[in-house]
Amino acid sequence: MSELVTFGESMLRLSPPGHERLENATELEVHAGGSESNVAIAAQRLGTESTWTSKVPETPLGRRVVGELRQHGIETDVVWSHRGRQGTYYLEQGGSPRGTNVIYDRADSAITTASASEFNLGLIQNAQVFFTSGITPALSESLRDATANLLKAARQGGTTTAVDFNYRRKLWSPEEAESTMTRLFPGIDILIIAARDARTVLGFEGDPRQLAHKLGSQYNFTTVVVTRGDEGAIGWHDSVVHDQAAYETDTADAIGTGDAFTGAFIARRLDGDDVPTALEYAAATAALKRTIPGDAALVTAEEVEEVVAEQGEDISR
Amino acid sequence: MSELVTFGESMLRLSPPGHERLENATELEVHAGGSESNVAIAAQRLGTESTWTSKVPETPLGRRVVGELRQHGIETDVVWSHRGRQGTYYLEQGGSPRGTNVIYDRADSAITTASASEFNLGLIQNAQVFFTSGITPALSESLRDATANLLKAARQGGTTTAVDFNYRRKLWSPEEAESTMTRLFPGIDILIIAARDARTVLGFEGDPRQLAHKLGSQYNFTTVVVTRGDEGAIGWHDSVVHDQAAYETDTADAIGTGDAFTGAFIARRLDGDDVPTALEYAAATAALKRTIPGDAALVTAEEVEEVVAEQGEDISR
Amino acid sequence: MSELVTFGESMLRLSPPGHERLENATELEVHAGGSESNVAIAAQRLGTESTWTSKVPETPLGRRVVGELRQHGIETDVVWSHRGRQGTYYLEQGGSPRGTNVIYDRADSAITTASASEFNLGLIQNAQVFFTSGITPALSESLRDATANLLKAARQGGTTTAVDFNYRRKLWSPEEAESTMTRLFPGIDILIIAARDARTVLGFEGDPRQLAHKLGSQYNFTTVVVTRGDEGAIGWHDSVVHDQAAYETDTADAIGTGDAFTGAFIARRLDGDDVPTALEYAAATAALKRTIPGDAALVTAEEVEEVVAEQGEDISR
Amino acid sequence: MSELVTFGESMLRLSPPGHERLENATELEVHAGGSESNVAIAAQRLGTESTWTSKVPETPLGRRVVGELRQHGIETDVVWSHRGRQGTYYLEQGGSPRGTNVIYDRADSAITTASASEFNLGLIQNAQVFFTSGITPALSESLRDATANLLKAARQGGTTTAVDFNYRRKLWSPEEAESTMTRLFPGIDILIIAARDARTVLGFEGDPRQLAHKLGSQYNFTTVVVTRGDEGAIGWHDSVVHDQAAYETDTADAIGTGDAFTGAFIARRLDGDDVPTALEYAAATAALKRTIPGDAALVTAEEVEEVVAEQGEDISR
Amino acid sequence: MSELVTFGESMLRLSPPGHERLENATELEVHAGGSESNVAIAAQRLGTESTWTSKVPETPLGRRVVGELRQHGIETDVVWSHRGRQGTYYLEQGGSPRGTNVIYDRADSAITTASASEFNLGLIQNAQVFFTSGITPALSESLRDATANLLKAARQGGTTTAVDFNYRRKLWSPEEAESTMTRLFPGIDILIIAARDARTVLGFEGDPRQLAHKLGSQYNFTTVVVTRGDEGAIGWHDSVVHDQAAYETDTADAIGTGDAFTGAFIARRLDGDDVPTALEYAAATAALKRTIPGDAALVTAEEVEEVVAEQGEDISR
Amino acid sequence: MSELVTFGESMLRLSPPGHERLENATELEVHAGGSESNVAIAAQRLGTESTWTSKVPETPLGRRVVGELRQHGIETDVVWSHRGRQGTYYLEQGGSPRGTNVIYDRADSAITTASASEFNLGLIQNAQVFFTSGITPALSESLRDATANLLKAARQGGTTTAVDFNYRRKLWSPEEAESTMTRLFPGIDILIIAARDARTVLGFEGDPRQLAHKLGSQYNFTTVVVTRGDEGAIGWHDSVVHDQAAYETDTADAIGTGDAFTGAFIARRLDGDDVPTALEYAAATAALKRTIPGDAALVTAEEVEEVVAEQGEDISR
Repeated sequence: MSELVTFGESMLRLSPPGHERLENATELEVHAGGSESNVAIAAQRLGTESTWTSKVPETPLGRRVVGELRQHGIETDVVWSHRGRQGTYYLEQGGSPRGTNVIYDRADSAITTASASEFNLGLIQNAQVFFTSGITPALSESLRDATANLLKAARQGGTTTAVDFNYRRKLWSPEEAESTMTRLFPGIDILIIAARDARTVLGFEGDPRQLAHKLGSQYNFTTVVVTRGDEGAIGWHDSVVHDQAAYETDTADAIGTGDAFTGAFIARRLDGDDVPTALEYAAATAALKRTIPGDAALVTAEEVEEVVAEQGEDISR
Repeated sequence: MSELVTFGESMLRLSPPGHERLENATELEVHAGGSESNVAIAAQRLGTESTWTSKVPETPLGRRVVGELRQHGIETDVVWSHRGRQGTYYLEQGGSPRGTNVIYDRADSAITTASASEFNLGLIQNAQVFFTSGITPALSESLRDATANLLKAARQGGTTTAVDFNYRRKLWSPEEAESTMTRLFPGIDILIIAARDARTVLGFEGDPRQLAHKLGSQYNFTTVVVTRGDEGAIGWHDSVVHDQAAYETDTADAIGTGDAFTGAFIARRLDGDDVPTALEYAAATAALKRTIPGDAALVTAEEVEEVVAEQGEDISR
Repeated sequence: MSELVTFGESMLRLSPPGHERLENATELEVHAGGSESNVAIAAQRLGTESTWTSKVPETPLGRRVVGELRQHGIETDVVWSHRGRQGTYYLEQGGSPRGTNVIYDRADSAITTASASEFNLGLIQNAQVFFTSGITPALSESLRDATANLLKAARQGGTTTAVDFNYRRKLWSPEEAESTMTRLFPGIDILIIAARDARTVLGFEGDPRQLAHKLGSQYNFTTVVVTRGDEGAIGWHDSVVHDQAAYETDTADAIGTGDAFTGAFIARRLDGDDVPTALEYAAATAALKRTIPGDAALVTAEEVEEVVAEQGEDISR
Repeated sequence: MSELVTFGESMLRLSPPGHERLENATELEVHAGGSESNVAIAAQRLGTESTWTSKVPETPLGRRVVGELRQHGIETDVVWSHRGRQGTYYLEQGGSPRGTNVIYDRADSAITTASASEFNLGLIQNAQVFFTSGITPALSESLRDATANLLKAARQGGTTTAVDFNYRRKLWSPEEAESTMTRLFPGIDILIIAARDARTVLGFEGDPRQLAHKLGSQYNFTTVVVTRGDEGAIGWHDSVVHDQAAYETDTADAIGTGDAFTGAFIARRLDGDDVPTALEYAAATAALKRTIPGDAALVTAEEVEEVVAEQGEDISR
Repeated sequence: MSELVTFGESMLRLSPPGHERLENATELEVHAGGSESNVAIAAQRLGTESTWTSKVPETPLGRRVVGELRQHGIETDVVWSHRGRQGTYYLEQGGSPRGTNVIYDRADSAITTASASEFNLGLIQNAQVFFTSGITPALSESLRDATANLLKAARQGGTTTAVDFNYRRKLWSPEEAESTMTRLFPGIDILIIAARDARTVLGFEGDPRQLAHKLGSQYNFTTVVVTRGDEGAIGWHDSVVHDQAAYETDTADAIGTGDAFTGAFIARRLDGDDVPTALEYAAATAALKRTIPGDAALVTAEEVEEVVAEQGEDISR
Repeated sequence: MSELVTFGESMLRLSPPGHERLENATELEVHAGGSESNVAIAAQRLGTESTWTSKVPETPLGRRVVGELRQHGIETDVVWSHRGRQGTYYLEQGGSPRGTNVIYDRADSAITTASASEFNLGLIQNAQVFFTSGITPALSESLRDATANLLKAARQGGTTTAVDFNYRRKLWSPEEAESTMTRLFPGIDILIIAARDARTVLGFEGDPRQLAHKLGSQYNFTTVVVTRGDEGAIGWHDSVVHDQAAYETDTADAIGTGDAFTGAFIARRLDGDDVPTALEYAAATAALKRTIPGDAALVTAEEVEEVVAEQGEDISR
């Protein structure tokens, strides 16, 4: 029985080696990644039994994605589909002043045809936390309903619901996102949101502490985490606001940083940590993630502990 | 001014190295390929000025494809599109008893939205040969019209029309292919067709010589080439049938063999060769293609000459 | 609940690319493999729910091995150890007249310290088949006992026991193998053995049909399969002998061929096939395995069906 | 008809991966590059129709170089030669305190035998700008004449002439360079020169602004650009001096930075920009180039715009 | 006749590319390295004839290690063994806050069975310097004796003895190291030791200058070098203390930095430099080493000179 | 003291991976190879102490070549040169009907400036065999003299002289080769020559046995070996002719086959074998070489023994 169940799409990620450009790439590195599976992997790494559930095409590409997630240690509960493609994204790693570029090629993927009834509700209702992100309802009309229905089912089963707002401008407009997501807000217990999204999509104003407070007060969230990139994060819980700085890091791959943060935060909360402590482990896991190629936070609980305790060695031998 | 203009889709080709499986690939080799650009490249290599025309998304992936075709020496005349994806295919190289597997991921590509009026008719009407394949009309309703209209325009400009039947069962049914292609037949001068397709799609019977003869007689083709894989090809021209054996070859990559054959056949015919001689060079080019990774026949005219003349050395030094 | 449980060591496999030699290799390809996990993977691929159980060091290398096995789709039930190394083998792919060379570096691996009581007996006793190979008792004194005890436990639980004799001269002498293995024979239902091992280790004489018959008669096996490399296999069951030819194959990697055969044989028997049919699927799976790099038979049930039905295409598109 | 024509040698560039040393490299990455083709590519990327003209050996290596240049989007007008080698350079990427090291292996390359009469003067005289660099006359006696004659022909055709001084101490002495280049100066409209070269080769003194002013006054240049590496550049035009800072950048490959700057400067000037604006785009293009492996500035006009407008995102998705 | 002879184990080093993790690596880069061979290579590079002596298994892996050392230019004097494994280490390159991780897999390697009598004492006694490190006696009981006996033999031959303390906590406890090493101290002329080891293993206190002074005074060393990582080093000689700063460096691979320092220090001392000058070259060599992948300082004497003279160019062409 | 000394050029060998073409290669594999160093390596592998002597540029590329030869186990006695390039060759592995193609880029290499007086005559005169090939005098006028003088010096020292005729049509004409080589013949004891060269360069006629006999009779050779590719070789010694068949082999890389043959033949002759036995080991070594990428025969004496004894296993484990 899993403690955490996450729901969403995992994509095939194709990226040229190093800093090469897609335009003249002769080989592409292959990874699997998606916000919700990334969160499950990070949580699993910190000791939470985690399952990712999704709808995936019954093709070598679909099996490629699911196989990698299993390799990283999580359970997968997959609806295999004979309709729809495997969602794909192309990634070009940048370097100032050239930004990292994500090219989505995920239209009409298998999951866009999904409805809530296809999934294992018992799995979700027996978990302690159910997680999805704002990317999922952005993918199709059908998934907006599915997301709402699965959140509702989780609540009915007594499962805590957690959502990362994760606005993606290449998927939908701010207006669509605002209207869809605020309708989901009443069913969400824990909200993670970037300060930038709170401002530009939801129209809130103020510094991150104020954003967290306003979000927490206006809706019924038990916990709100406002992330600020390399300036750290704010945690709001029981009307109290906690500040968490980001750790300095040598970035090998920035994709999945926020998911590592969220997965670790959930794992430590499930483990009984208070919010400030959970934020600290979340920040440490996020910093470690950035040193690792690929979407997934392939860390150990011990490594996270060492970062929090500042006990790491430059070379351990 | 190009002697040969070809029209169709070129795809991004993604394949695991060697004989690895997609299911656990960690890197993919990238090539560009499609029947019509493959034909243009082979013809160019044998000395025919060739242009490929198509509709391509204005994205890094679209530029990746066009850039590689230019690298191989042909001219490209591209309608850059802001709608539609870059068509893609995944390729697993097999080995007996596991067949080579093509997984198309080309639905809704940019070219599927094309109409004939978008293309440079002057280019086509000033060429000596216009070539497309049966893959093009299989891609969308809109492309069926575009193909018919471009063939008609070519004819009106006095340009010889050549078509490779190229039935792909993963794109359409035999019935759809039969009905669409036979409607195009009256506008085609040179038909290249696999014996298997003549039988299973068009319902003809008999040995390859009979197939060539029946096709040539029943429709108005000036030339019919019936291909038989590693058993060679039959050329029918002016009611005479010519037999061409295939050369023995160490196969590194079988994709594009037929296109190399067709491109060389057209090039040598344009150069004034009679049909039997053109078939001989076509077979030699096809054999060389199989020794080269990727879709394209990266050969030189001299290499083809050496194969025909049987003058090659094991090691040339 | 798994239908098949296999027990043994999976190693980290390190091999230079292509036909390069270890002596000047600058990179090594990494796979995970071992007879018993290979068997589980092949069986899983043909539809049998399979679990591999073992004792593995709690290190990145141990997790590397287990992660890959999970990626291939099987369940893993692992005793994580803080003692002992990760067993490793170096592999040089040969080419006539240079043989493929395996260099074991597996002494003092974690599993060599295992005893039967560390493992999940319920898992084994609830399975339909329990499988191990003659490699396992060759690894340590402790594992000889563990193997005997687990076979005994399986029998007690009503689980069918299957063993591949798999003599490895680099691990023990023929005399040690003979004495240890024949003591295990009474607890084994299904024996798979190479004709060569039956002769040089057990001292039997005759052609493979005679070997199968003698083994079946002398001990209490329900089924004996005698393998003969590229000459196929002999199945003995209920005193009847069945001949199965090997399929012709383009070999990319011969390691794991026998395990693919065994896994498929078990899977099809569990699925209700009679012995001759199961042998046919086993031979087809073994042939497919040889086309795939790595120890594991990354095939689909459909691909095996196509080989048996001889319906494959050279290029499927 | 091309707006910009550039003339010079493009080399095969061979470099070990990452920071590896040539001395124990087991593989080399292959690129094509040379100052003049780099300039053409950068200009083409910013919207200027550009052609590179040169003399190249008719060998696979010569075709390798030309093919890559075509892939990057420029036109090539090549005199194919049966005499002379393909010029080559080996590149070791450094890292402080180890400098990046270029080892030329370009003696007796095909272009060293060239004379002006071999090239297409009409192409040059119909262009708006003709560009070469101080590397070209450094390569052979014959090329000193050819360079002078082509500059003269360009002038006669009313084509603006632009030259990057580009002193290479591994090709000739300061004295040879000074004497040859100053003889070419009267035929040059736009001069680009590193402050270091103005000092150590031409013997000018002063800060970069003074260098630009002195050069502009002493000779008949309409425009002088003095480059200062990561401190930016000075543009002198109509007796007015303009300062342009360099953008901060994460350097993946510094080779070609100056050429990217020059190509973009020419392109924007051709597009009607005043000198300060053209310098800004030049600096932005140079900064982007440094993030990209290889000699060529594989950027888009949009990316350059974003850097100038400071609108880039860390991750665009 | 070699000027420097070093004695110790060289391992096969296996590391995932870039910053990848062992846990999901699909290929490993192979190098050979060990403190004593690293020291010999650095010294050889600076002009000292150097030989590394060791006991190595007569296997492809043993030959792989020895071959690479020969490639780097040193002589090897090897006792080929039919007992014992090739020592191996796995290396994960880190990045803040994830440290670089060394996983030793070297237990029971061939050298652990060595005794002093197996080695060529004449070679050592005819050299000017004999070097080993504190890693060697940490590997086995037998090697503790061998190390002591070889140091004694060197002294008897009039050869200067130099030892790098090199404490490795993954090999032995501080107590074991302290007791073993201090027993060796009377036979050592030149001691190199990290400040951290002087404190945590030997229990000295004070700043690095004080540590050097105390070590030099308490024992009979002629020279003590106390290293402080990126803060440089302290040299104590004839009761005088010299400060040497570290050069700033772009680190590609930190492994072997200390060995490069030591090898260069010994080489320059042998060449007649005084201690401050030798320290300067040592620091420059160490800085260059960090820019080069692998254990070995593949530098030239000229490159070291340029760093000391601060004459390097960003790009040399 | 070396038993065998070989003299000639070793080149940097650059080849695209697998069967790729140079024309669109993006990476090249690097090896070092040349007939005379290949011979030394093969002889060393079979137990003969071997030294290769040559003149090499003092550059990273020169050190790259020498380092690899040392890695393979031979001694190198190198005249380091500040004039001349590192000779290079590009290699495209073919596949029927496309031949393997060697593109020499070796003009003006350092060795072309060599004279006999630069080399260590004592080394040659103390060896038992001195070997060079017909490639060496083909490289420059200066080398024709040097070759003649070194052969003379060897004779004077009592050293047996062995030469492989090795005609290369890309280096000189048959007439030049014939005139130069026949002038060297009186100073040669052992001649190895391809049947094809004996016919087309020297104008002999007849089957290989007759060619061997005529060569042996007409000149003063003690031994003549006539090679016939995959049909084996003929050995003529003391007027007796011996036939040796070639072993069947899976060819990974055919370059260096003849050199492996020659090196092994010399080694076994030095070891006391009669000519037929030496030919058998030579053929076995040549067959093993073909299974190994690169020029060098990286075999062990044991592996050669197993081939001769036909005791190899398909998989040794």
